[in-house]
Amino acid sequence: MINKDKYALYIGRADDILDIKTANGFSYWRKDDCVAEITFTGNMVSTGQPVMTLKEAWDKGARKLILGIATPGGKINQEDFAPICDALGIGYTIVSGLHMKLAEIPAILNHPDYKAEKVIELRNGGKKIMATGEKRQGNRLLTVGTDCCVGKMFTALSIHAGLQQRGIKSTFRATGQTGMMIAESGICADAIINDFLPGNIEELSPSNDSDHWDIIEGQGSLFNPVAVCIELLHASQPDALVVCHEWGRKIMDGTRNHPMPQLQEVIDLNLTFARMTNPHAKVIGISMNTRRTDKKTAELICRETEDLYGLPCEDIVRHGSDRLLPNESNEKHS
Amino acid sequence: MINKDKYALYIGRADDILDIKTANGFSYWRKDDCVAEITFTGNMVSTGQPVMTLKEAWDKGARKLILGIATPGGKINQEDFAPICDALGIGYTIVSGLHMKLAEIPAILNHPDYKAEKVIELRNGGKKIMATGEKRQGNRLLTVGTDCCVGKMFTALSIHAGLQQRGIKSTFRATGQTGMMIAESGICADAIINDFLPGNIEELSPSNDSDHWDIIEGQGSLFNPVAVCIELLHASQPDALVVCHEWGRKIMDGTRNHPMPQLQEVIDLNLTFARMTNPHAKVIGISMNTRRTDKKTAELICRETEDLYGLPCEDIVRHGSDRLLPNESNEKHS
Repeated sequence: MINKDKYALYIGRADDILDIKTANGFSYWRKDDCVAEITFTGNMVSTGQPVMTLKEAWDKGARKLILGIATPGGKINQEDFAPICDALGIGYTIVSGLHMKLAEIPAILNHPDYKAEKVIELRNGGKKIMATGEKRQGNRLLTVGTDCCVGKMFTALSIHAGLQQRGIKSTFRATGQTGMMIAESGICADAIINDFLPGNIEELSPSNDSDHWDIIEGQGSLFNPVAVCIELLHASQPDALVVCHEWGRKIMDGTRNHPMPQLQEVIDLNLTFARMTNPHAKVIGISMNTRRTDKKTAELICRETEDLYGLPCEDIVRHGSDRLLPNESNEKHS
Repeated sequence: MINKDKYALYIGRADDILDIKTANGFSYWRKDDCVAEITFTGNMVSTGQPVMTLKEAWDKGARKLILGIATPGGKINQEDFAPICDALGIGYTIVSGLHMKLAEIPAILNHPDYKAEKVIELRNGGKKIMATGEKRQGNRLLTVGTDCCVGKMFTALSIHAGLQQRGIKSTFRATGQTGMMIAESGICADAIINDFLPGNIEELSPSNDSDHWDIIEGQGSLFNPVAVCIELLHASQPDALVVCHEWGRKIMDGTRNHPMPQLQEVIDLNLTFARMTNPHAKVIGISMNTRRTDKKTAELICRETEDLYGLPCEDIVRHGSDRLLPNESNEKHS
C-alpha cells in the first residue's frame, strides 16, 4: 500500500450514509492519503475529511479523485457528470468503481477534457479464464457474512494489518471496488462474467509460501437472495473462515422483508461449501459489527456470542482483530 | 417454438462428442427444422443429420447456421473463421452461443460479407437489473444437477413437453446457449455479469397464472468448484426441483480429480437454498442419465434409486418424463 498519490473523495449529493460507504472505507483505511472531501450537500453525510472544492483539493496536492458513492446497481447520476468533467479539466485522474462506465457516458466521453488514460474503471469484466479446481500452496482466510454490508472488507483488512504487525507474511486480496481502491489491486467479483468468476478468484490468490496468508475479502452472503457469491468459497479454497455479522439487523440487505439467518446456519453452510475444495477448512472466529449500540453493550454481545458458539468474537473497529488472527494451528490444518 | 426457419448445424473439425453437445441438443429437440450438418472430419462425431456443404444446405432451404460447437471457455478456432465468412457470403444468419464474440474477431468483422444484423450472439451480458427477492405468482420447476452435463436442459425440455401434451400451461425457460437456440428465448446465465444475474433470473420467470408452470433449465452444480450457479436456486423461487444425475460418473466435469457428491447431499443442499426464498420447495423426482449402460441395467438403476430415495426416478430419454411431471400437490405446496 505504498503510494505517493494524494486523494480527494467525491461524494456529490449523496445524503445517505450507506451511499458513501466507498468513500468512508477509503477514508478509514487510507486516511493519511486523503486531503479532501468533495460534497454538495453541506454536512448531511461526511467521511470526516475536510470539505473543499476540486480546485482547493488539487492545490493541497490531491491528484486522484475517488468516486466515493456506491448505489445499488452501480449507477451514477446526471448531476455528477459536470463535476467529473471539471475534475478532468483540472487534471485529476478519476477512479471509478461503478458498474456504469464513465467511458460510456456521452457527456463525459465527448467532453474536451476527457482522456482515456485519466479514467480508471475498476468494475471491469475480469479476465476470460476458466478455473481448474486444483489445490494451491499457502494459506487462505476468507471473510464470509450473514449478509451484505456487515463488515467483510473491514474485517479482512483488519486481520491483514494484525498479521503485518506481528511480522507474519500476508496479502490482502480485494474482491470489491472499495477494496481494490484501498489495495490498488484485486478483482471486482460482482462485475465479472459468471463463467469466468471461479477462474479469476483462483488467479487472485495464487500458490504462495507455506507460511504466507492470503486474506480474502468475501462478498454477499449465501443467505442473501439478491447478492450471493458462492464462487469465493469454492475457488478461494479457504483454510480459515471468519464469519461477519451486524448486531441488530433484522432484514436482509436489498430485500423488503427477507429475514436474517441464524449465525449457526451461516457457520454450517459456509463450512459445507468451503470443505468441498478444502476438507480442513474451519471457522476461526466471529467478527461482530456493533455500530448500532454502545460500547458496554457491544462488549456484552461479543462475550455472549463467544460463549454460545465457542469461537472468539470481536468488533474489529472497537476491539481490533488480535483474537481473530489465524494461528499456527490453522497453518497445520489441525 | 413455431418457426419457419430451417437450420444447418456447424460442427467444423470437432472430434469429441462433448464438443458438439450444442449441435446434438438442437438436433434432438428441433429435429424437423434441421436440414444438414456441416463437418470437416468425416463421421468422427455426428448429430445424425445429413452431411452437406454450406451451399448444398442453403439450396435445401437452410437459412440459419447454428455454431454447434461448445468448448470450455467458449472459444472458437481460427480454422472456423473462413467457413463462417463463407456462410455469411452465401446469405446465412449465424447463431453463436460462444463467449468469444464473432464481432470481436477481426478476420470475421472486417470480412466484406460481414453484416451485424446477420450475426446473433446469444452469450451477451444480460440486462443491468438488480433482483428484488419479491415472491412471484405461478409455479416454477427447476432442474438441478449433481454436476454439469448430466441432463438438466434435456430434463426441463422433456418435462415441458410432457405438460404440453397434457394440456397443462407451461413455458420452458432457457438459461444456457443451447436452450436459447431451441426455445428462441431465455438468458445465458454464465455470460451475465455476476451482480445482475439474480435480476435477470427473476425477469426470466415473471409472475404468471396460478395454474402455469415455468420449467427452468438449471446450470452447473452446487458441488462443482468450477461451475456453480446458485443464483438460480434463490431467484427462481422453485416450487419443485428435479435432481439430474449421470449414472457412473466418478469425477466432476472440468476438474482433474474432484469426486462426485452423493445424491442425498445434492437433494439436501439444493433444498436448503431453494427454501430460503420458497419454504414449500420440494424435490419431486430424479432424472437419471443412463447413457453409459444398457436398457436392462438402466431400468434396474432407476428402480433401485427410486427405492433408496423414495422419489420417482427415470431416464427421460429412455422412459419419458411422465413420472417426473409436477402435479396438483405441488401447485398447492402441500
